[in-house]
Amino acid sequence: METKNTKAFGTVAADAPLNEMNIQRRVPTPTDVEIDILYCGVCHSDLHTARNDWGGSIYPVVPGHEIVGKITRVGSNVTKFKVGDLAAVGCMVDSCRECESCEHDLEQYCSHGMTGTYNAPDKHLGGQTYGGYSERVVVDEHFVLKVPTNLNLAAVAPLLCAGITTWSPLRHWNAGKGSKVAVVGLGGLGHMAIKLAKGLGAEVSLFSRTPGKTQDALDLGADHVVISTDPKQMEAVKGTFDLIIDTVPYVHDVNPYVATLNINGTHVLVGYLGDLNPMLNTVPMIMGRKSVAGSVIGGIAETQELLDFCGKHNIVSEIEMINMQDINTAYERMLKSDVRYRFVIDMASLKK
Amino acid sequence: METKNTKAFGTVAADAPLNEMNIQRRVPTPTDVEIDILYCGVCHSDLHTARNDWGGSIYPVVPGHEIVGKITRVGSNVTKFKVGDLAAVGCMVDSCRECESCEHDLEQYCSHGMTGTYNAPDKHLGGQTYGGYSERVVVDEHFVLKVPTNLNLAAVAPLLCAGITTWSPLRHWNAGKGSKVAVVGLGGLGHMAIKLAKGLGAEVSLFSRTPGKTQDALDLGADHVVISTDPKQMEAVKGTFDLIIDTVPYVHDVNPYVATLNINGTHVLVGYLGDLNPMLNTVPMIMGRKSVAGSVIGGIAETQELLDFCGKHNIVSEIEMINMQDINTAYERMLKSDVRYRFVIDMASLKK
Ligand SMILES: [Zn+2]
Ligand SMILES: [Zn+2]
Ligand SMILES: [Zn+2]
Ligand SMILES: [Zn+2]
Repeated sequence: METKNTKAFGTVAADAPLNEMNIQRRVPTPTDVEIDILYCGVCHSDLHTARNDWGGSIYPVVPGHEIVGKITRVGSNVTKFKVGDLAAVGCMVDSCRECESCEHDLEQYCSHGMTGTYNAPDKHLGGQTYGGYSERVVVDEHFVLKVPTNLNLAAVAPLLCAGITTWSPLRHWNAGKGSKVAVVGLGGLGHMAIKLAKGLGAEVSLFSRTPGKTQDALDLGADHVVISTDPKQMEAVKGTFDLIIDTVPYVHDVNPYVATLNINGTHVLVGYLGDLNPMLNTVPMIMGRKSVAGSVIGGIAETQELLDFCGKHNIVSEIEMINMQDINTAYERMLKSDVRYRFVIDMASLKK
Repeated sequence: METKNTKAFGTVAADAPLNEMNIQRRVPTPTDVEIDILYCGVCHSDLHTARNDWGGSIYPVVPGHEIVGKITRVGSNVTKFKVGDLAAVGCMVDSCRECESCEHDLEQYCSHGMTGTYNAPDKHLGGQTYGGYSERVVVDEHFVLKVPTNLNLAAVAPLLCAGITTWSPLRHWNAGKGSKVAVVGLGGLGHMAIKLAKGLGAEVSLFSRTPGKTQDALDLGADHVVISTDPKQMEAVKGTFDLIIDTVPYVHDVNPYVATLNINGTHVLVGYLGDLNPMLNTVPMIMGRKSVAGSVIGGIAETQELLDFCGKHNIVSEIEMINMQDINTAYERMLKSDVRYRFVIDMASLKK
């Protein structure tokens, strides 16, 4: 298969810093498009995969799955795009395309496993897929999104992971006018959850452990901030929320949040993979028909819906732009939650 | 308030056996009906309340919330019933009637707390409400159900708790043609869950720890039995079920069942009140948008829907009839799961 030399930024080992390297991109097949990457958001998964925190990383790792850019080449059968179009790629670049999930536009739940944008088996070239910390990427057009032209392009990038991860549960559990949504955690995901829930017309609260984030949350569109360490404030919102989007990525007690769900309410975990410790108590769940659920990213059609919605409502991420060469420092800052609210790499810095 | 002397069977202390006693029933108010109790099902909650297993029991306790009988008297404003009609009473005899839950026919989730048929504050006479182990009961017509005339009346009684407890989640989570439902536990609740899910047109599986219950489950209408202690059988149903009705009343590991849920599937606990131990793991929930939820009994309108459905589909409980005087022995047998599948008291035995 014909390939093209491509400049990238990645790491060769769990304990090595990210550095410039060279990777190969396939020449577009008839259904592929080639995208010149302009911006790439920096997701916590990038860091965890680079450092093999979850196991399973195969090196070299080139992270990045919040990709926006411009189409530079299209395969002969491509119908959605033409050269010069804006385009975006999120967390998936392929799936089986024929299982029940794929047929229902739920490629993220493909029963054969979707192909991640990085560190997943590359069906075309063998080896692993390489992500958006690179000059260009080649992707089947089904997994490429159209980008509204009225938005700050760099600030669109985080919609592809942080945005869709919160959008999908908001939509699946019908957040909208008349519903009360709460968000746990004010990071990359949480700040998008506030903006999107508000955009959908919901009444939005942020749960925060300290009052320090109150003004920020209100500025982002939250109607209320509930200090979760204050028993009085927690008691005051008991039985209130129809939907809680829990973006906290580490182990934490969800029982206090379940208590704040209304009858039929759902607490959706989108950030924490592991055991619910302390143990989940079923009494309030049974006595209020409450659910605890999980959700991961979103399907391609749903991601397009999100981008269109953001175009219409002028919603983008709050970002801090960095150069590709700053990525190792950015990772250290992310670990300290020292970012409002998402780093985005200006890929021009790699191409210099 | 005028009252009527009523023979009942109850207990005066947690460690005392049930015995005949005398209680007062109010003379019907304008919206009340008086019911001559013909049969009363025996629920595990009866035993737990009699013995104060959950705390909060106030003595004397007269259990019983699976009540069927005949109307003997109606208040001046009663419109649903006339003397001589069959009637039934389940787990609730009152609620606030004006909160959001009550307005949506979800009296079981009344935000002011519904009034249980027994051991709840009696709004009319003070003291506690007394249940169906008695000659008669007086209840506001809103909380009284119409009973189809084509069914075995004694076998209708368990529909009022065991039936509605499984019906409500089957309906709420849309079990029906094309859906795959699994039931955990084959007791009073589990055997009703199988019959009702099958009646709704779902493909029904029973999870059982031993093969001993296989024939019984098939006889009740189950399409499949999965031996949950056999890893091969559990692996074979991975990702299968849209809905699991978990009737197990003691602590147990739900993680193996969550693994058998399909994308978007829900595991509903209706029997176990307490901490999920071992801890619930969020990974399969997030990676398959799965939910763990709880549900308690059902609303009045939904209970009527159930009774009408059972009349139409000729569905009743499998019962073993006992005399009122056998109740203490019956409790001991229930503790050993030695009943197929519900004891029902022939109340004629109390009236002798
Ligand atoms: Zn991500
Ligand atoms: Zn698939
Ligand atoms: Zn019961
Ligand atoms: Zn109410």
